Amino acid sequence: MTESFIAKNKERMLKELTELLSIPSISTEPSNAADVQRCAEWIADHCRAIGMTETRIYPTPGHPIVYAEWLGAGADAPTVLFYGHYDVQPVDPLHLWTNPPFEPVFRDGKVFARGATDDKGQVFLHLKALEALFAERGSLPVNVKLLIEGEEEIGSPNLEPFMNEYREMLRCDTVLISDTPIFAPGLPSLVYGLRGLCYMEVEFTGPNRDLHSGTFGGAVHNPINALAETIARLKDGFGRITIPGFYGDVVPLTQEEREDFARLPYNDQAYCDELDISSTYGEFGYSTYERTGARPTLDVNGIWGGFIGEGAKTVLPSKATAKISMRLVPHQKTDTIAALFEEHIRTIAPPTMKVKVTNLHGADPALTPRDSDGVKAAVKALEYAYNAKPVLSREGGSIPVCLLFDTILNAPTVLMGFGLNTENAHSPDEHFSLENFEKGIIATSVFYDEFLSIARGA
Amino acid sequence: MTESFIAKNKERMLKELTELLSIPSISTEPSNAADVQRCAEWIADHCRAIGMTETRIYPTPGHPIVYAEWLGAGADAPTVLFYGHYDVQPVDPLHLWTNPPFEPVFRDGKVFARGATDDKGQVFLHLKALEALFAERGSLPVNVKLLIEGEEEIGSPNLEPFMNEYREMLRCDTVLISDTPIFAPGLPSLVYGLRGLCYMEVEFTGPNRDLHSGTFGGAVHNPINALAETIARLKDGFGRITIPGFYGDVVPLTQEEREDFARLPYNDQAYCDELDISSTYGEFGYSTYERTGARPTLDVNGIWGGFIGEGAKTVLPSKATAKISMRLVPHQKTDTIAALFEEHIRTIAPPTMKVKVTNLHGADPALTPRDSDGVKAAVKALEYAYNAKPVLSREGGSIPVCLLFDTILNAPTVLMGFGLNTENAHSPDEHFSLENFEKGIIATSVFYDEFLSIARGA
Repeated sequence: MTESFIAKNKERMLKELTELLSIPSISTEPSNAADVQRCAEWIADHCRAIGMTETRIYPTPGHPIVYAEWLGAGADAPTVLFYGHYDVQPVDPLHLWTNPPFEPVFRDGKVFARGATDDKGQVFLHLKALEALFAERGSLPVNVKLLIEGEEEIGSPNLEPFMNEYREMLRCDTVLISDTPIFAPGLPSLVYGLRGLCYMEVEFTGPNRDLHSGTFGGAVHNPINALAETIARLKDGFGRITIPGFYGDVVPLTQEEREDFARLPYNDQAYCDELDISSTYGEFGYSTYERTGARPTLDVNGIWGGFIGEGAKTVLPSKATAKISMRLVPHQKTDTIAALFEEHIRTIAPPTMKVKVTNLHGADPALTPRDSDGVKAAVKALEYAYNAKPVLSREGGSIPVCLLFDTILNAPTVLMGFGLNTENAHSPDEHFSLENFEKGIIATSVFYDEFLSIARGA
Repeated sequence: MTESFIAKNKERMLKELTELLSIPSISTEPSNAADVQRCAEWIADHCRAIGMTETRIYPTPGHPIVYAEWLGAGADAPTVLFYGHYDVQPVDPLHLWTNPPFEPVFRDGKVFARGATDDKGQVFLHLKALEALFAERGSLPVNVKLLIEGEEEIGSPNLEPFMNEYREMLRCDTVLISDTPIFAPGLPSLVYGLRGLCYMEVEFTGPNRDLHSGTFGGAVHNPINALAETIARLKDGFGRITIPGFYGDVVPLTQEEREDFARLPYNDQAYCDELDISSTYGEFGYSTYERTGARPTLDVNGIWGGFIGEGAKTVLPSKATAKISMRLVPHQKTDTIAALFEEHIRTIAPPTMKVKVTNLHGADPALTPRDSDGVKAAVKALEYAYNAKPVLSREGGSIPVCLLFDTILNAPTVLMGFGLNTENAHSPDEHFSLENFEKGIIATSVFYDEFLSIARGA
C-alpha cells in the first residue's frame, strides 16, 4: 500500500524534497543557467534511483529537458506520459519572503520555498508515487514516460521542436500533468480547460534623452503620461477589452458550463478577505470563476519609466515601458491576438510617441474532452485519495504544452493538480500543503491502476 | 582686465574645474553623503584661496552650507549675495553616458560631467570672476557674500532655517544666481520669473501580495492598470490639468509678457529636431515658451510596478507607484496644490485600491521686478560680455530659494545664467560650454562695477 510506503519513508522523502527545492532553477534569469542545469541533473539522477529504466538529459538551445521511461508493461499495455517542469519563477520582491526562497522551511504542515507548489513539489510527488509502486510490486501497471522540462515559466520555447523530433519516443495514450490547483483543502479538482496567453511588451519613446521637467515640462509629451493614457484606453467601463476583433473567436460559455462554475465552492467575502481587497473587479456580467477560467483578460504585468529611486528627481523621461499580457480562451489564437494588439496600440498611441511592440511569448488556450479515459481514471483516483467527489472546471492559467500534446502526440491531457490557489505560486512565501503532497502520491499511484482497467474495459 | 586674467590662468582654471566636477556630490543618494561633505570642503578651501576673508562650513541636519564673505568695500557700499549649489542630480541611467559622469572630459569646446552646467560649473565661474578682481585690484567694488548649499536638488530643506538664523549675516542689496539658461549661443539671457514645484508620490495597493495573473487575472483589479487609468484622468483633451481648483490662483499672462515671449528666438522645427520629437505637445492655446515658462504643468517623473526584469513574468502585482510633479506659476502655492492633488487622487482613485499620497517636496513660484538695480546691472554686464542685447524671460524650472531671499532677506534676485537648454542638465552627458564659461567670468566680474554705479546713481 502506498499509504504504508509513505509512512515508512516520509522523513527521507521530505529530505529529498528539501534538496530539490534548494536549487534556484529560475529559468528567466540568465545568471541562474547553471542552477537550472544542476536541477535537471538532480531530477534525472532521482528518476534512475526510483527505478526508471531509461533516463536521459536532452540539451536544448535553452535549458535541458529530462526524459525517463519504463516500458516494462509491454507493447500492448497503455502508456501514460507525465509532464512537469523543474524551472521556477523569479523571486522578487525578495524582501517580502519570510524565509529565503531557496532554503525550504517546514511549518504548519506546509513546505515554504519557490517552486514548492509550482511545479517542483508536484513533480516530486509523481516520482514518489512511481517509487512506491516499484517498491511494492517491482513494476508499474502501465508503461510510463516522464517529460520534465526547464523552460515552462518562459513559455517552453524549445519543447515543441523536441517533441517533433522525438514524437515516436513520446507516443502515449494520455498525458498526465499536475500544475493546476484544487479548489479547497479536501476538495480534489480536475481541470478540463486552460486559458492561453499573449504576452507583449510596449515601449514608448518621446524625446531622445531624459529632460529637465522644469525646462521642458508642458511643451514635450511625457512618455509615461502617454503610456498611461494608452493603457487606460485598453478597457471600457464594463471591464471589456477595447481591441477591435479581440472577442471575435471567443466561444460563449454554455449553460452547462455556467452551471458547473456555479457549483464551485466560492465565498466572495472570503475571497476578498484572503487577498485584502474591498471587492473583486472584472468583466461585467460574469462570476469570479467565469472571469478567471473562461473569459479573456488583459493585465499590465510590469511598468517602468523615469526616476524610480529614492527621493525626487524632476525628470521628463525619454522612455516608458510596460509588459502587458492577455489571457485567452477557446478559440482565440495567440498570434492573431498579438497582431490585433499591436495594430490597436499603434492606432491609439499618441503621434508624439515612437512605438515599439514586442511579442514576448504566447500560448493558445486548451480544452480537454471531459469523457476521456484519463479524466475518468483521474476522477476515480482522486475520489479514492480524498474520499470526496472531484469538481471539474476550467482554469485561468496557461499550460502551453497541453496544445502540443494534442497537436503533436494527438493525446488528451489530464490535469490533476494538488496545489491550492492560496499557496502563492509566482509570489513571495510560495508553499505547498504536505497533506496534499501525500494525497497526491496516493492519487497518482492509484491513477495508473484505474487507467489500465478503464483502457482495458474500453 | 578679466580677459587677460583668463588667458593667463586658463589651464589652471580648467584643472580646478575638473577637480570640482570629479566629486560625486549627489544630494539625493544617502550613500554619497561623504562626497557631498568633501565637495563642501573643496568649495570652502577654494573661497579662501581666491581671497574671501571669512569662509565657514555650516553643518545642517542634511548636507552642509558653505558661506564666505568679503566686506572690504565698507558699510556704506552695496552688498551682493551670490547663491549657488554644489550638489548634483543622480546619474542614472548610467549606461547612457559617453564618459563616466564624474570623470570630466573636455571635447568640442565643452566640459562633460554631472554638474557641469547645473550648477557646479556656474558656481565655479563666479569664484573665478572674484579671483580675477582680487588679482587685478586686490579688492572688490562692492561687498560680496557667497552662499553655496548642498541640497538644492532635493528642495533645500535646511536652507530656510539657516537663513532665518543668520538673517543679519546674509543681509544684502541684491541676490545673484547663475542657475538659469541662456536661450542660444551668443544670446545672453536674464530670467525674471520662475515656476514653482509640487512633487508628489502616489502608491496604489490592490491585493495584499503579488498574484499569478493566470489564476486571478480578470477577477482582481490590477494596481498598474488602475494607476494608469487614474493618471490618464489628470489631464483633459486640451492638455489642461483636471484637478478642481488647480488654475484658481494662476495669474493670466499680460499682453506685454506674451509679446516678450513672442520675441524669444524660437524655431519649432529646430526645437523638435534637437529632441527628435515629431511635434511639441502641451496646453492648448499657448506657445512653447509660454507653456514652459508661464503655465503650470503636470508630469509623471517616474513609475514602477510588477515585474520589470528581463523576460516575461505573469504577475498581477500588489502595488504600483508613480512620482508625479506639477510645475506652478504665480500665484499658485505648493501647499495648496499638494492638498488639491491629494484630494483629487483620492476622489478619482478606484474604490478597489488602497491609496497612499506623499508630498516629496515643493517650492512656490517666483517673480522678480524687471526694473531692479540688479537686473539693470546684469543687462549691462551681459551686453558687455556678449556684445549683444540680453533677452528677458520667465523660466520653467524652480529655484525655491528665490522666494526665501524675497521673504527672509527682502532682497530681489537676479538670475543671470550661462547654461544652454541643450546641455543635458539632469540627464546623461551633461555638459557646459567653455565659451559661456569664459563669458560668464567676464560678465560677473563686470556686474559688480555696474551694480555699484547704478546703486550710487540711484
